[in-house]
Amino acid sequence: MSGSTIGKIFSVTTWGESHGKALGVVVDGCPAGIPLCEEDIQKELDRRKPGQSPYSTPRKEEDRVNILSGVFEGITTGTPISLVIFNHDQRSKDYSQIADVFRPGHADYTYHQKYGIRDYRGGGRASGRETVARVAAGAIAKKILSQLGVQILAYTLSIGHIKIDPERYDSSEIYRNPLAMPDKEAAGRAAEYIQQLKEKGDSAGGVVECIIQGLPGGVGEPVFEKLDAVLGKAILSIGAVKGIEFGKGFEAAYTTGSQNNDPLIYSQDKGLYKETNNSGGITGGISEGFPIVFRAAFKPTPSVRIPQKTVNRNMQNIELSLKGRHDPVIVPRAVVVVEAMTAITLVDYLLQRILSRMDLIKKALS
Amino acid sequence: MSGSTIGKIFSVTTWGESHGKALGVVVDGCPAGIPLCEEDIQKELDRRKPGQSPYSTPRKEEDRVNILSGVFEGITTGTPISLVIFNHDQRSKDYSQIADVFRPGHADYTYHQKYGIRDYRGGGRASGRETVARVAAGAIAKKILSQLGVQILAYTLSIGHIKIDPERYDSSEIYRNPLAMPDKEAAGRAAEYIQQLKEKGDSAGGVVECIIQGLPGGVGEPVFEKLDAVLGKAILSIGAVKGIEFGKGFEAAYTTGSQNNDPLIYSQDKGLYKETNNSGGITGGISEGFPIVFRAAFKPTPSVRIPQKTVNRNMQNIELSLKGRHDPVIVPRAVVVVEAMTAITLVDYLLQRILSRMDLIKKALS
Amino acid sequence: MSGSTIGKIFSVTTWGESHGKALGVVVDGCPAGIPLCEEDIQKELDRRKPGQSPYSTPRKEEDRVNILSGVFEGITTGTPISLVIFNHDQRSKDYSQIADVFRPGHADYTYHQKYGIRDYRGGGRASGRETVARVAAGAIAKKILSQLGVQILAYTLSIGHIKIDPERYDSSEIYRNPLAMPDKEAAGRAAEYIQQLKEKGDSAGGVVECIIQGLPGGVGEPVFEKLDAVLGKAILSIGAVKGIEFGKGFEAAYTTGSQNNDPLIYSQDKGLYKETNNSGGITGGISEGFPIVFRAAFKPTPSVRIPQKTVNRNMQNIELSLKGRHDPVIVPRAVVVVEAMTAITLVDYLLQRILSRMDLIKKALS
Amino acid sequence: MSGSTIGKIFSVTTWGESHGKALGVVVDGCPAGIPLCEEDIQKELDRRKPGQSPYSTPRKEEDRVNILSGVFEGITTGTPISLVIFNHDQRSKDYSQIADVFRPGHADYTYHQKYGIRDYRGGGRASGRETVARVAAGAIAKKILSQLGVQILAYTLSIGHIKIDPERYDSSEIYRNPLAMPDKEAAGRAAEYIQQLKEKGDSAGGVVECIIQGLPGGVGEPVFEKLDAVLGKAILSIGAVKGIEFGKGFEAAYTTGSQNNDPLIYSQDKGLYKETNNSGGITGGISEGFPIVFRAAFKPTPSVRIPQKTVNRNMQNIELSLKGRHDPVIVPRAVVVVEAMTAITLVDYLLQRILSRMDLIKKALS
Repeated sequence: MSGSTIGKIFSVTTWGESHGKALGVVVDGCPAGIPLCEEDIQKELDRRKPGQSPYSTPRKEEDRVNILSGVFEGITTGTPISLVIFNHDQRSKDYSQIADVFRPGHADYTYHQKYGIRDYRGGGRASGRETVARVAAGAIAKKILSQLGVQILAYTLSIGHIKIDPERYDSSEIYRNPLAMPDKEAAGRAAEYIQQLKEKGDSAGGVVECIIQGLPGGVGEPVFEKLDAVLGKAILSIGAVKGIEFGKGFEAAYTTGSQNNDPLIYSQDKGLYKETNNSGGITGGISEGFPIVFRAAFKPTPSVRIPQKTVNRNMQNIELSLKGRHDPVIVPRAVVVVEAMTAITLVDYLLQRILSRMDLIKKALS
Repeated sequence: MSGSTIGKIFSVTTWGESHGKALGVVVDGCPAGIPLCEEDIQKELDRRKPGQSPYSTPRKEEDRVNILSGVFEGITTGTPISLVIFNHDQRSKDYSQIADVFRPGHADYTYHQKYGIRDYRGGGRASGRETVARVAAGAIAKKILSQLGVQILAYTLSIGHIKIDPERYDSSEIYRNPLAMPDKEAAGRAAEYIQQLKEKGDSAGGVVECIIQGLPGGVGEPVFEKLDAVLGKAILSIGAVKGIEFGKGFEAAYTTGSQNNDPLIYSQDKGLYKETNNSGGITGGISEGFPIVFRAAFKPTPSVRIPQKTVNRNMQNIELSLKGRHDPVIVPRAVVVVEAMTAITLVDYLLQRILSRMDLIKKALS
Repeated sequence: MSGSTIGKIFSVTTWGESHGKALGVVVDGCPAGIPLCEEDIQKELDRRKPGQSPYSTPRKEEDRVNILSGVFEGITTGTPISLVIFNHDQRSKDYSQIADVFRPGHADYTYHQKYGIRDYRGGGRASGRETVARVAAGAIAKKILSQLGVQILAYTLSIGHIKIDPERYDSSEIYRNPLAMPDKEAAGRAAEYIQQLKEKGDSAGGVVECIIQGLPGGVGEPVFEKLDAVLGKAILSIGAVKGIEFGKGFEAAYTTGSQNNDPLIYSQDKGLYKETNNSGGITGGISEGFPIVFRAAFKPTPSVRIPQKTVNRNMQNIELSLKGRHDPVIVPRAVVVVEAMTAITLVDYLLQRILSRMDLIKKALS
Repeated sequence: MSGSTIGKIFSVTTWGESHGKALGVVVDGCPAGIPLCEEDIQKELDRRKPGQSPYSTPRKEEDRVNILSGVFEGITTGTPISLVIFNHDQRSKDYSQIADVFRPGHADYTYHQKYGIRDYRGGGRASGRETVARVAAGAIAKKILSQLGVQILAYTLSIGHIKIDPERYDSSEIYRNPLAMPDKEAAGRAAEYIQQLKEKGDSAGGVVECIIQGLPGGVGEPVFEKLDAVLGKAILSIGAVKGIEFGKGFEAAYTTGSQNNDPLIYSQDKGLYKETNNSGGITGGISEGFPIVFRAAFKPTPSVRIPQKTVNRNMQNIELSLKGRHDPVIVPRAVVVVEAMTAITLVDYLLQRILSRMDLIKKALS
């Protein structure tokens, strides 16, 4: 059944396999009147492009985006925007070793069970390459959000056991080091750690943190469309994510109510504010108007050279040592994907917010 | 905008406020031909009913369910099933102290921002009481699942820092102690801890773990409707949940690929199996056919007697000490809610699974 | 599968069977801030209430509506509005003759095929009584529309071969005669015609026409959610409707382009206007800002006393003469249902219109 | 807001403008395991291709379809199928005369009102060329239906006042004459009529009739997703359609119940059958298992050479004589579009039918 569409208002439909002819996305419901060109999208794609550092797959893909519809004379027209990225460096033969094998940690066996048939080349639809379409759509969402004063910033919080030190937090570092860590020193240690794993043929996981600023209060739809629920779904839909938490997250479960509640305080200077942000900026599933904070846990890349036990389609036990081109860590390239999924979700629910109140409706239609 | 409906196939729409006339749910898309009576639903409602232990609010509610449609001569007819639970013990005056105040940790301020108006009595729509409708719908979902061989079991994994000991795990304890902990000894200590908090006027959080057994492989819809993503959304939509993780969850981020991958093994006796379940039973967003495991973090009940700083509608700083009837811990009553949301989600995606393959479609229509 | 919900923004879910305990509707997505009381809804229900004229079923139903949620101190809160109408005069025994019989023209046989089981009492879910929930929801939609300057007016255009004379059109007559015809003379002749059919145990069909005024241009979502397509679906979903046409409708197929196009004309006095309205106020699926006109064809009530051939569940050929209480014509009571479905659809798409343009979005959020 | 997607299960999202780079469609939810190649789709596209007869626009478009995803080794994989048709013969300068003018009968003025901006080249998104994407998706839907024994046949019933004679009905004629009329003699007269209009610079409308055979009973979802309602929406969403009717349609409104009801009859030889089909094969919104019949009215092509009054963007009254390349009648090329929309709708609801009954669900999952 259809599961490649997300969003009720700003509706994003992706398609494409890792080694098919192309990948793409249709964005329907983008408001008319937004300046948009291919470069707006390309600069986001370039952030997740493979082959940019020793810590990502050497697969060479230009990942050039084409806008095929929905933009006229540089302005969105309100009709569906179709974006396509053609595949070039497909090297299908690399993957012949896995046509009949279920790689551990990959979706080979589950796709086999679900569909009976699967495009095994490079993981097909289950490949991380699928996220190129998310990032393209996210670039459009970000343009809308920036016009409405909303900023999204994600970064690598930790790789393996190496975590950034909040005291050394420096956001400018995010774009400077290839691991997208806002702490130069931690990034250095993480790079060494990954290098070691790479030599062993192993891989690392990590945690991405995301901060949303400028989002007004009142965004999110109770009961089942709570903002944390829909953000959670969007982030958990990214391939390797195994957990998500908001604000204090799992730690909140160990505190008491009097410790965990964030008192609201008003002062002439600052207006309304909170001294703590244990809630992560969302209460009752609705944005508070304060910064939103969440973290997503990424499992280590399942493709490792170290030999592993598994079975093939004939249920024979085999040992598998993956050759091919693989990321020893996916986390840094996932940072922009987290931002994209956040942006796609926020646009959808920020627009929905208008329709919750008769006064806003009248203002829009007046 | 509408956010009170969940499910595409098995579609659940809830309504009602904590101190309104009633709460209820419409279940549309329930297949015809399932035996269903009020007692099937009532026994689930009784598991979350307030006033059953010293650790839950003394509010007295019978929580009697009425089936108003969709069942004929004890069998579902395929038409919408409307369930209503009328409120009795409303005591609206208890809440007069909070009409103009934004309680810390509650959704008072966010609802105020979103809608401009809110039913402040007992939290209105944002009250935990809203979950009575989820549990009612979940009872129907469970009936369907049990006919298809799927079992769901949730329990309290920890309250505050008191965690069950896996060595002492005893599932029969879940229904025996009021904290729904499958470890008698831990339950005893947790009870003491809660008693202390209660006396201080404070509250505790905790973690709920949930195990799904008997679900076939192939359930979940890539890309955006991955099974973990949709389960995550369903669980994060429960009021106090601040995080969710699958299998090894956040810990996976600290391991390496060779450690974290679950090898597939085949033997004549056992068929295909896994020695580890780090994935939590879902890969690539699709069920593996092995047990699914996830954990949800619940924040402490925000209603505490201990005085807290906050503001009122006029942005005056005040100190608030909540009287009323409150749960010192919500986790044990949330266990059945976690099961309900899991069941509702599983039915929806298990049914969708049929439509993914032409061979299953032909089998059904033959 | 779920089919009892309509609307993406203003989402209406109905439930209930003709002879069940109650019928009802949940309206989710109604904006906060609208004054609403039971009387607002009741006055619409009274327009379709049975037993009000010799031309409708003598079944006695008060059809009293109860608002169970979503309204606080007389104002909508943005949360789901649950409305219930309890059944009183059920007389189930009247229907015992049809438990095993498939009445011609009724949905007995199709429900039997679809679900294997059906509530045969009074047609169950397939009864025209189901529309009581539509009218209740429509009353809320009308309140919103009236705040936004939109009016909907439906009336009986013809009953059998008796059609109103446009020269004698008098809208005040619609509420004055029991056939809702805006032509007193035609209403008189139609009444005689129905009286004759009633005596013979037969029934009549007819056509309802509906005019929408005050709807701004720009409403309707290309390509699949064109305004005429979604209005068409809403109207065709009413039990006995067999056709719908907009503007010149089927006649347009017999004209030429130069005859059928409506020229746009501008004058200082009148602004932009059209001398003809062959389009019926919608072009390219989007409202023009001029009046919208459509017509719906209702088949004759299938319940007739005249003996008819049919089969029973055992595929035995039988002859059936329906006793019971039946409307000799359903059209006049359907007029308010047409208005309700129109209102529900218009609210949904009028609200969607805001989200089509960045300038409207900014205005709402500023 | 998003309106370019149709279907809940078999979900079709189209995109593209008449004179943009390409048009296309993403089909998500297509079951895995269906043989599919470009030729399957191409042969349907060729049926609506322009420039094939004197009665269609001489615009030259190859309309070659490319499958970019979702098919592996000639079999559908269950993942989204992306189809693209690149535009070649765009001749944008032809349309420069209309950049600032609102053509009568076209969607120029309504798009202008809705979006503030529009791609005026060839009507942009509102062009009939948009239907190429529908036909491509319809080809896939037809493949599924043919595997399930369902056939769809549409044809031109009338052009202007020239109607086929049922006595001369010959289905083989549909593919033989360029007007898709199953009556050679009527087709001849219609051709003459169109030739006359063409010389005058005028255009004709017409009626398309569609017959569905082999669809089992039980398809369609009460209450709002009745089969006639959803088919009606699908057909009304085709550009020039102004009306739709099922079975006896508008004529039913003039009959009586005893005339209009279709008696069910059972015989050893024929099984259950009906001697009349006034219902058009749908009762209570559910298929009966008998042939389904409906008719759609198409207005005349609005592009005519005959001078017409209209206004430009500055609200100046002007006279417009359209040059360019236009179809003097759109009806014959619309026949395959009607079939496509019917197929897309039927697949979606035929699959939904499985989920209505527990016995079918168990059969599929066993």
